[in-house]
Amino acid sequence: MTGKPDIKYLFEPRTVAVIGASHNPEKIGYKIVENILACGYGGNVYPINPEGGEILGISAYKSVADVKEDIDVAVITIPAKSVYEAVRSCADKGVKFSLVISSGFSEIGDVESEKKIVSYAREHGMRIIGPNIFGMYGAKASFNATFGTRDVLPGDVAIITQSGALGISLMGRTAVDKLGLSSMFSLGNKSDIDESDLLEYLIDDPETKIIMMYIEGIKQGERLVSLLRKAAKKKPVIVIKAGRSRRGAIAAASHTGALAGADNVFSDIMKQCGVIRAESIQEALDWCKYISETRQPNGENTVILTNGGGMGVMAADACEKYSVNLFDDQETLKKIFAPVVPAFGSMKNPVDLTGQATLENYKTAIEAALQNKDIHSIICLGCETAFFDAGKISEMIKKTYLEARPDKPVVFSFFGGARIEECIKELKDANIPAFSDVYESVSCMGALYASYRNTKYAVESTDPQKIKIDDKAIESVIKKALDDGRQFLMPYEGEAVMAAAGIRVPRNYIAATIEDAVKCAEKIGYPVVLKIVSRDIIHKSDAGGVIVNLENENELMDAYQAIMFNAKKYKPDAHIEGVQVSEMLAKLTKDAEVIAGAIRDKSFGPVVMYGLGGIYVEVMNDVSFRSYPMAKQEILDMINETRSSKLLAGVRGSSRKDVSAVIDTLAKLGTILVRHDDITDIEVNPLVVYDENKGALALDVRILLAKSKEVKK
Amino acid sequence: MTGKPDIKYLFEPRTVAVIGASHNPEKIGYKIVENILACGYGGNVYPINPEGGEILGISAYKSVADVKEDIDVAVITIPAKSVYEAVRSCADKGVKFSLVISSGFSEIGDVESEKKIVSYAREHGMRIIGPNIFGMYGAKASFNATFGTRDVLPGDVAIITQSGALGISLMGRTAVDKLGLSSMFSLGNKSDIDESDLLEYLIDDPETKIIMMYIEGIKQGERLVSLLRKAAKKKPVIVIKAGRSRRGAIAAASHTGALAGADNVFSDIMKQCGVIRAESIQEALDWCKYISETRQPNGENTVILTNGGGMGVMAADACEKYSVNLFDDQETLKKIFAPVVPAFGSMKNPVDLTGQATLENYKTAIEAALQNKDIHSIICLGCETAFFDAGKISEMIKKTYLEARPDKPVVFSFFGGARIEECIKELKDANIPAFSDVYESVSCMGALYASYRNTKYAVESTDPQKIKIDDKAIESVIKKALDDGRQFLMPYEGEAVMAAAGIRVPRNYIAATIEDAVKCAEKIGYPVVLKIVSRDIIHKSDAGGVIVNLENENELMDAYQAIMFNAKKYKPDAHIEGVQVSEMLAKLTKDAEVIAGAIRDKSFGPVVMYGLGGIYVEVMNDVSFRSYPMAKQEILDMINETRSSKLLAGVRGSSRKDVSAVIDTLAKLGTILVRHDDITDIEVNPLVVYDENKGALALDVRILLAKSKEVKK
Repeated sequence: MTGKPDIKYLFEPRTVAVIGASHNPEKIGYKIVENILACGYGGNVYPINPEGGEILGISAYKSVADVKEDIDVAVITIPAKSVYEAVRSCADKGVKFSLVISSGFSEIGDVESEKKIVSYAREHGMRIIGPNIFGMYGAKASFNATFGTRDVLPGDVAIITQSGALGISLMGRTAVDKLGLSSMFSLGNKSDIDESDLLEYLIDDPETKIIMMYIEGIKQGERLVSLLRKAAKKKPVIVIKAGRSRRGAIAAASHTGALAGADNVFSDIMKQCGVIRAESIQEALDWCKYISETRQPNGENTVILTNGGGMGVMAADACEKYSVNLFDDQETLKKIFAPVVPAFGSMKNPVDLTGQATLENYKTAIEAALQNKDIHSIICLGCETAFFDAGKISEMIKKTYLEARPDKPVVFSFFGGARIEECIKELKDANIPAFSDVYESVSCMGALYASYRNTKYAVESTDPQKIKIDDKAIESVIKKALDDGRQFLMPYEGEAVMAAAGIRVPRNYIAATIEDAVKCAEKIGYPVVLKIVSRDIIHKSDAGGVIVNLENENELMDAYQAIMFNAKKYKPDAHIEGVQVSEMLAKLTKDAEVIAGAIRDKSFGPVVMYGLGGIYVEVMNDVSFRSYPMAKQEILDMINETRSSKLLAGVRGSSRKDVSAVIDTLAKLGTILVRHDDITDIEVNPLVVYDENKGALALDVRILLAKSKEVKK
Repeated sequence: MTGKPDIKYLFEPRTVAVIGASHNPEKIGYKIVENILACGYGGNVYPINPEGGEILGISAYKSVADVKEDIDVAVITIPAKSVYEAVRSCADKGVKFSLVISSGFSEIGDVESEKKIVSYAREHGMRIIGPNIFGMYGAKASFNATFGTRDVLPGDVAIITQSGALGISLMGRTAVDKLGLSSMFSLGNKSDIDESDLLEYLIDDPETKIIMMYIEGIKQGERLVSLLRKAAKKKPVIVIKAGRSRRGAIAAASHTGALAGADNVFSDIMKQCGVIRAESIQEALDWCKYISETRQPNGENTVILTNGGGMGVMAADACEKYSVNLFDDQETLKKIFAPVVPAFGSMKNPVDLTGQATLENYKTAIEAALQNKDIHSIICLGCETAFFDAGKISEMIKKTYLEARPDKPVVFSFFGGARIEECIKELKDANIPAFSDVYESVSCMGALYASYRNTKYAVESTDPQKIKIDDKAIESVIKKALDDGRQFLMPYEGEAVMAAAGIRVPRNYIAATIEDAVKCAEKIGYPVVLKIVSRDIIHKSDAGGVIVNLENENELMDAYQAIMFNAKKYKPDAHIEGVQVSEMLAKLTKDAEVIAGAIRDKSFGPVVMYGLGGIYVEVMNDVSFRSYPMAKQEILDMINETRSSKLLAGVRGSSRKDVSAVIDTLAKLGTILVRHDDITDIEVNPLVVYDENKGALALDVRILLAKSKEVKK
């Protein structure tokens, strides 16, 4: 395999060949050449058509081999069956990137042809985007090699989309919304180049201020996660992933062939990466446009101005939904707004200028808010009333807003009839963020703050190689199980793995005689629990085979004899192997029972899980996920994200629990997975968490292994 | 007090007086007369102005007393200080309804003036709407007595709004959205007429097909609930209530002076009533328009048609969010769509016509879906592609859809550039439900199905008077506590109340002697628990003062002696009152612990609560509420609405619990509240629920009483 070409030439190609350039204006091979030319591409364009001739005034070559110049990008738009030959000729010619528009590969089940193409390309140092894509756009080279809209605007938003049909209509939509793009890529089947490859470039691309991605399924998730984390620290990254619902996830999987993965895993990991997730495409576009045109705020004091109490309340609801923080300093609010708000209005936030507020009142209030340094952002609402002259709003706002060129984020939301509609349109045309729906405007503000917070708080992952666990001990446990042909560990093996990682488990020993039992109890320390060990006695308690809270040697010996007596009475012919002597756990109702786990996710690799434990795991589904490795702070975030995290903080007067022991346990579980490929699942349920500084105890451990060496991630 | 006027004359007034009619076109008193005349009101209009003269070509009277004719409605729009006099003159004249537009009453703290007005009006048989409103609209009389838009369209949607500024802009918005109204009312301070009064009329109003309400706070909730239940059985009722968030609720309370109430109580009770709750005003308007123009479906088999897999997945997500059921019969789907879907498309639902689908393909698919009886509704999506000609969509849809005049609900959602925008506009203009956002279209379908389900399933409340509880016993417990000056019941009193209602509580007796103890145990039935009773021994277990699981008289007597011995050893000078003999509770971890409660809600009166019990109540907040009385089926619904309801169904192989005992307990708690005004709160936590047919046990009961007779609701 020769070296990979510089991906810069994909974003800014100097020359392009169109394999399958057509004379027929109805064909995609014609439309692509047409778009390239119409959008002002400055490089040389080589239409390739076996018939030769002229296409749109340019001489067509019969073969790409005939082109003298080096080719940066070849666009391939011919039937699937001929694509391999075309790819060969491009690769042989030394083309750097091939965009395979043609469909009819893995998306309809033909994985082999796709593999063949990629493997030839890779061997010859060419990279493939697609197949099954609609092309790409790069603003710097004015390069629109798509069959989408020609009206695409250059700008600072990069879009990567997995879906073709949706992507091409999305491109059209950006033009309508006047959202300028730095680049746009359709990924299709992701046979070679995927979102990670493009993301890597976009992180440092000075042309790109915001990255928006439409995702259906993820492969190579670990690399993507590390790149997303890096990207989101530098610029806002907005993601839309369809398949939130169970039903949706099934549809997504059948459509892309990629495993969509459990949506809550995806959702939590995006949060971890600092990526903002939009529900709908329009929401994502609104966010891109707003963030692209707005300066970052200087703080989190947001003020709502309104002339309708009801609209103010709805905005306050929306602020909670989208995590926008309302400014609450009554004194300051009073100082700022007392001169503006009538007696029966409200100077609390939302600031209610009352239904009698005129445009002049609004102007004064907006200016007061813009000028005050304690206010960092403004949500300005207006209902159309007899006093609030819809015909003149846009003029006033334009003057106030544009003249002030505010260094703080503002959104406007006006509600009313035809004149309000017109006013919103006028404001939008002047690039002023105005919406009719309160939720839409606040959602934009929320996205801005989400990206603001993310750039503020940086976290560095702890290196899992630095966490001390006894790998050799773990390997030997695994080996034994694999040698037995098992894909799971026995409970005592699971406990051994925990012990090797320094996670506390209940201590217990098997004793065959009464003297043995006494020795074991001394090793453990009183009080202890004694249980009969016999394969013939399943219901130990029913047989009188369990005695708890034995506090000294005398009690232990009495109990031993009692258990033996009971067992014989219960089942005279039972084969009795001995007794189990266990640590007497001070498991009190005040201790928290949580679940801690680590799984090898098909999309994201090692993923750590935390949540409410016991039977409530299934019932309440109160769990959170994170990609591992990660920083301690992130583990704390994931714990705090669960509703039940209050249990650790201490509820109903019960004391604080040892959160750091939970963090430690989760880090160790993740580390075990990272360092032992054979393990696919670890579930500790419950992990009993004691009071602060008292640690935690893995009461029940289940560990699963990969089917065989081949199956591993 | 004379009789109330027939509210019909509010909705269809035959004559109107405008008190404060003005010569100045800037004044509201001018605008209202102008609107009444401009909108084609057919009755007589009497402008009242002390200066007389002509207003808009009509002679003004100096006083309402001067008008010869009877007046159905007087619109009062003069400064607050003169309103009382105007109301007096109207009432004296025999006016039926006064709309008090003027503000400056309870909303700014002047409760007294408002009370004075209402009390005078009531004494003279006149009713008041307002004060602090923007007026009303009634389509039947073409009566637009507002200072809002004149473009309001007559139709079949009735709107009731509590907010003034929002309401008037909402009125303007209906005109833009071409949503026809049967009537619209602004309620303002609700000093007299409130939403219930209007609702009562609207339930049987043949002009009204849909009722939409904007609510901020509720008074007289019990009446409203019973009317909403009735209304929602007959026609869709759509509610928007701002104040979902804690912050929003605070803002709402400060703004209206009405208690917003806990939002989850409101939300759950609306569900109970069959009312559909919208998040934003625009959503509510979209729902109204869609439901108003669409026939009810014949079943719940919905099919998604798409040319973009991604858009299909998003629609499937949205279907889950808005409870739209996707048709899943693969055989039937295949039969219908095999002729339409290309090989690499999907005949599963979402049906993927692929990115290469042409308008002709769409037409065939839509027609196939429209004609098939197994499909009850259609969500048709389209991404703008090279094949999907945006310029011709609206023409095709109009033809296909309007010609078919389908008897099944359809929504369209198209995504793309400028031509798609235009197409959506054209379709909307033709009253075809088309949206660019997938979530918006599916949300409309969801609202339609919500109202469809509600009319299908009727439930009749159980009469709380028919539930057997021992009221006398309860009253005597309450009386004792009140006589003691307490606002709470002691634990044993709470247990007595439960027992009087036939709710099982742990049985226990105090015994002073060993003979007593034996008698008590016989009353309870073995096994029993024995506990020392001594004010000097707090930690009974530490003192060896608790012995459990006593199975017969011998064991009991041994235990009695052991306890006495232990107690004396533990604290030789302790004063020992005797022992408590208690039922031995088989409280196993497999029993479910739930919380059952009943509270007297400030907005809604008796409200019953159910949820996950124990410490998890606070942590998980997994509770549901219902207004009481209600039907058994509704109690079951409220149980099933909690995430933890799975506990009762049996999780992890544990058996089904006695759900009917929970239903019975909740009904009894509600009944206690309905029949005993002094009780404000009952909380049973935990209510231990045993296996099926084994009942439930109120392990811990807390009951609170009202402060004094005056405070009671």
